[in-house]
Amino acid sequence: MEKKLSNEAVNRSAGVIPVEHQDCIQGRGRSSARETIGRVAAGAVAKKILKQYSGTEIIAYVSQVHNLVLPENLVNHETMTPDQIESNIVRCPNPEYAEKMISVIDAVRAKGDSVGGVVTCIVRNVPQGLGSPVFDKLEGELAKAVMSIPATMGFEFGSGFAGTFMTGSEHNDEFYIDEHGKIRTKPTALGGISNGEIINMRIAFKPTPTVSRKQNTVTRDKRETELIARGRRDPRVVPRGVPVVEAMVALVLVDQLMAQYAQCMLFPINPALQEPLQLSKDKQLQVQF
Amino acid sequence: MEKKLSNEAVNRSAGVIPVEHQDCIQGRGRSSARETIGRVAAGAVAKKILKQYSGTEIIAYVSQVHNLVLPENLVNHETMTPDQIESNIVRCPNPEYAEKMISVIDAVRAKGDSVGGVVTCIVRNVPQGLGSPVFDKLEGELAKAVMSIPATMGFEFGSGFAGTFMTGSEHNDEFYIDEHGKIRTKPTALGGISNGEIINMRIAFKPTPTVSRKQNTVTRDKRETELIARGRRDPRVVPRGVPVVEAMVALVLVDQLMAQYAQCMLFPINPALQEPLQLSKDKQLQVQF
Amino acid sequence: MEKKLSNEAVNRSAGVIPVEHQDCIQGRGRSSARETIGRVAAGAVAKKILKQYSGTEIIAYVSQVHNLVLPENLVNHETMTPDQIESNIVRCPNPEYAEKMISVIDAVRAKGDSVGGVVTCIVRNVPQGLGSPVFDKLEGELAKAVMSIPATMGFEFGSGFAGTFMTGSEHNDEFYIDEHGKIRTKPTALGGISNGEIINMRIAFKPTPTVSRKQNTVTRDKRETELIARGRRDPRVVPRGVPVVEAMVALVLVDQLMAQYAQCMLFPINPALQEPLQLSKDKQLQVQF
Amino acid sequence: MEKKLSNEAVNRSAGVIPVEHQDCIQGRGRSSARETIGRVAAGAVAKKILKQYSGTEIIAYVSQVHNLVLPENLVNHETMTPDQIESNIVRCPNPEYAEKMISVIDAVRAKGDSVGGVVTCIVRNVPQGLGSPVFDKLEGELAKAVMSIPATMGFEFGSGFAGTFMTGSEHNDEFYIDEHGKIRTKPTALGGISNGEIINMRIAFKPTPTVSRKQNTVTRDKRETELIARGRRDPRVVPRGVPVVEAMVALVLVDQLMAQYAQCMLFPINPALQEPLQLSKDKQLQVQF
Repeated sequence: MEKKLSNEAVNRSAGVIPVEHQDCIQGRGRSSARETIGRVAAGAVAKKILKQYSGTEIIAYVSQVHNLVLPENLVNHETMTPDQIESNIVRCPNPEYAEKMISVIDAVRAKGDSVGGVVTCIVRNVPQGLGSPVFDKLEGELAKAVMSIPATMGFEFGSGFAGTFMTGSEHNDEFYIDEHGKIRTKPTALGGISNGEIINMRIAFKPTPTVSRKQNTVTRDKRETELIARGRRDPRVVPRGVPVVEAMVALVLVDQLMAQYAQCMLFPINPALQEPLQLSKDKQLQVQF
Repeated sequence: MEKKLSNEAVNRSAGVIPVEHQDCIQGRGRSSARETIGRVAAGAVAKKILKQYSGTEIIAYVSQVHNLVLPENLVNHETMTPDQIESNIVRCPNPEYAEKMISVIDAVRAKGDSVGGVVTCIVRNVPQGLGSPVFDKLEGELAKAVMSIPATMGFEFGSGFAGTFMTGSEHNDEFYIDEHGKIRTKPTALGGISNGEIINMRIAFKPTPTVSRKQNTVTRDKRETELIARGRRDPRVVPRGVPVVEAMVALVLVDQLMAQYAQCMLFPINPALQEPLQLSKDKQLQVQF
Repeated sequence: MEKKLSNEAVNRSAGVIPVEHQDCIQGRGRSSARETIGRVAAGAVAKKILKQYSGTEIIAYVSQVHNLVLPENLVNHETMTPDQIESNIVRCPNPEYAEKMISVIDAVRAKGDSVGGVVTCIVRNVPQGLGSPVFDKLEGELAKAVMSIPATMGFEFGSGFAGTFMTGSEHNDEFYIDEHGKIRTKPTALGGISNGEIINMRIAFKPTPTVSRKQNTVTRDKRETELIARGRRDPRVVPRGVPVVEAMVALVLVDQLMAQYAQCMLFPINPALQEPLQLSKDKQLQVQF
Repeated sequence: MEKKLSNEAVNRSAGVIPVEHQDCIQGRGRSSARETIGRVAAGAVAKKILKQYSGTEIIAYVSQVHNLVLPENLVNHETMTPDQIESNIVRCPNPEYAEKMISVIDAVRAKGDSVGGVVTCIVRNVPQGLGSPVFDKLEGELAKAVMSIPATMGFEFGSGFAGTFMTGSEHNDEFYIDEHGKIRTKPTALGGISNGEIINMRIAFKPTPTVSRKQNTVTRDKRETELIARGRRDPRVVPRGVPVVEAMVALVLVDQLMAQYAQCMLFPINPALQEPLQLSKDKQLQVQF
């Protein structure tokens, strides 16, 4: 015995959702990740503004599919390019691991099952000073933004959960002077405010719930039954999350940049008190009156 | 050669922070976690409202200190009480592991170092329907709230990063009928909206950066030096995070409850369309006109 | 020599408006009052909620067209009905003055000119307690809402500008006991918060700027010229303002009701401290769990 | 028989106000206009920013006390200075009328009564482009801000209620070229957005309700009685409104300037599409990187 079960049906179980589209099936429900098209469109504008204003680059990629974890030493966050990531369908910057990930997904698809994974997102050349010191910390805004993407279950900023296994002296928030003579530090945000270092985030995506295998469920009149979902399904949600993560991060940063710009740039910075906003070398535009 | 380095000094490195309190030392800076006192005070009111309105209980506890992880099967989220957690200074509901955690912290303190860890937070009897379906998902609001707590580096909702190692059929979003004949499911929020199941979150706290060991740093005029922080420091930030996490979760839930209440309770629910809001049995109060 | 000049062109003169629709003409520009259709649609829902919840009635009417002012003693705000207002095309509840207003408009139209006027709006059975005591006073929210309607130039709450010609003792904020034994007062809001008395507002609409008569203007290259507007124009904007005013007032009140409901109705009112919310007799619905 | 009646008592009549300060008397209640001190303090900063950024000047003055109306032709909004207004205690820029107003107030005070009046506020050198085109029109924001000042009962923008007595051709929204060859127009905001012309507002203040004369009232147990207010009272609220109006207008304009700046100034204006923001000649500062 088979039943149709859609995203909408799943979400209807929250009980108080108005049931507008009773017969929505096949990935077309209100909670379908298809709504993210609008986020990606807006994010494209945001990314362009950030690139042009401060050379800021937001790059996300798949760093884990199911049990297969891309080793950190195989990617260089300083030099990685979007082209490397878009060179394969799993959006993994390392070609060898990309092949492995495709194999993992194929194997799972053959069994009618699905997998989740992790998207890593970095931000290079982020302007200093974005964010707020207490409730609206930059990492909080980013966390909310990516946790609003369907299927996300976790967010890590900087050292994340791995950092909990380090001691304070290993975790290393030390300041040092880099080869260009600039004061640098490891943390990418301090007290909720960006410091110009590369931001590094990891986002967990659960396996797509709509699988082709027979599953147990119950009918509305509470009889136990089984179902095989017939809606459109995707065994590999993670690569699809990559552009959505980039978009949400870009939207947060543009919002913060506008707030920062309005608060701090109406008048020139007093150099006696602080250094000016660091802009990347490829920023050609000059604000003029 | 030693230097004082305060929280404020650390945060000043973000570059554009107005330097109000140049000589703040000893944990008294703007980014000191001491500001969380206000969150806990407001959270206490929020927790009381939630308890009285819908029997909602928010309970957080330390589930990991450095490498020591409390096994999940040693806590029962259905029956756990705040008293169990407050019975020891590390706020771990299992007495045996509490002792072990204290030993871990003592060993680290003796070396002048610090550790981080994980706070787990559950919510029982959460009203159905809290949250929004797209940008302001319940898990997003919670993520932002806890990521605004100083020293937090990661947030997991439900299966979190562990869920990325499961297949879709293992991850198990199935519906079933419980012993009371109610339709239940495993996920604690669906499409950004609470469904009444127990909410389960994990929050990563990094080790306190202010350690007593000698660390490398640089002076403002860019000379390399060493420092021993003399400010007040805490080798075990994680137990202190417990009440703050509870407070922030409570504040999010009260906000969402107020929004839900205003949107959905002005008029009685049409039982032909949906079930009423489930309130816990210990709710004695009745709204009357 | 004639030129087309549209609303859009007029608004473009503000200088920094993005020029999306360069060739918009005939009342179709971004600032056309046609956008108010969405306000009226949303307002219809808001009015229905207010009526059902607390018997609240929002009734607006034309009380002045050009120099013709409807005497206050010809309308009874306690008994006036929407039908009386909709019984004629100028939306004036007094038939005799409605005829006079139509004559005024006809005479102006014949000359290719336009007129403005005043819309009066009352709210009966407004729940007590709507509004906030300092920055978001009820009268402030209402002022902003109606001043966002195109062509509005002024807002009066209660005694308005006429009240400035009275002394404090004439203005009369006294409390008294009405025939039903209830404590009453004249002011309709006190300290920004509704007290249940009939709210009374007057809104000034300027004459439509798009007239058929030849007018002086300048071209973009700064030559002086004349124009006869060829776009769609309306010599009597005021009657059209009536439903928009009602809609904006309804939207403000529903927002405030939701805020009030969320803040004050989660738990029953303590009768030892204050009287319950006064609901009108025709309220049939009861909130139940 | 006399009773004390305070602001707080008056406002308590709204019924749902928490009664924190049962025995507040003598103008010290929650709704005392004394809270406006904070507005004036913040407004002083806002005025300084506006002055420095764009030479914007916000000047308010008393244009009516009770029946005494300052003729418009006795003030020149292009040249009027704050010194002229602060030269007398009624804050009227015309010395002769200032004397008359003082006489009016003295006469009323002698009778134990109070008067209201009108504050006119102008803004010179307002940057073009402040405001929004639909719901958050500049005039709406200003209306809300001034209607949040205690005792305000009406707001006029530009021609206000007087404009309703004009025809469209008299009201005159024509464009023309001024002596400096610039395109000008009469309206001070078009479609909710500032166009650089002088903004002109009038705000109605009701007579202070706390008068020294015996007034009728009722007790809480609904017996009719009389009272003579013994709290601190002010027979001339209008001059005191002048700095508060200026402050609220300044705060609105700074908010709008920040929004405008963030939205439009991240990148240089394309001169092919529009003219740059007009800044006044006395602006010395230049934004630099």
